[in-house]
Amino acid sequence: MIRRKDEQTVEYKCIRGGNGDTEMRRLLNGADEMYGKGRMFNLMTLAPGNTIGRHTHEGDNEIFYFLSGTGEYDDNGTITTVGPGDVAVCHDGQAHCVKNTGDVPLEFIALILYS
Amino acid sequence: MIRRKDEQTVEYKCIRGGNGDTEMRRLLNGADEMYGKGRMFNLMTLAPGNTIGRHTHEGDNEIFYFLSGTGEYDDNGTITTVGPGDVAVCHDGQAHCVKNTGDVPLEFIALILYS
Repeated sequence: MIRRKDEQTVEYKCIRGGNGDTEMRRLLNGADEMYGKGRMFNLMTLAPGNTIGRHTHEGDNEIFYFLSGTGEYDDNGTITTVGPGDVAVCHDGQAHCVKNTGDVPLEFIALILYS
Repeated sequence: MIRRKDEQTVEYKCIRGGNGDTEMRRLLNGADEMYGKGRMFNLMTLAPGNTIGRHTHEGDNEIFYFLSGTGEYDDNGTITTVGPGDVAVCHDGQAHCVKNTGDVPLEFIALILYS
């Protein structure tokens, strides 16, 4: 099955009380298309200054793979700068958040797998 | 957990009898880091002319998300052109292969989830 860019669902949503909306492009349509193994495989885009609010994962694990831009990432309490090529993993029971601290969009793949 | 680009494992491997080696950058270290839900979350890079050979998935499902370049994709028997933004899903029991038909690297995320 091929899903072209213009056939993908795109949502704009304030996530976890963050600043501004995040563009969420569904590469797979959530849990329905993930064979019972997870609930998200998205391309996420944060505009400059925007954030995903801090939240704790319970029952699942989230992996970010950063494609472009510059961000500040809270890795369960440790603040670090992230950019293209970095992988961030938030395990079940841990917390994270991310902010676009640059002047171009911060793009990353977000994959959520169940525990 | 943050894994920087220079901390990731990169392998070069001829895949499924394809032409040339594929660069496989492990964003997660296979099944060991996928919570029992899958066995691959890689950035794959095919040089111009190189291919991943045709193969059938049995017991798992593979999703490609194309980031850059141009390829010819065999979607279980249907040949199509793929490029940035396209998603290709090979369900359990289906076959696929891909060739870089352009003159720049063909880059894509490869995610394998168990059935």
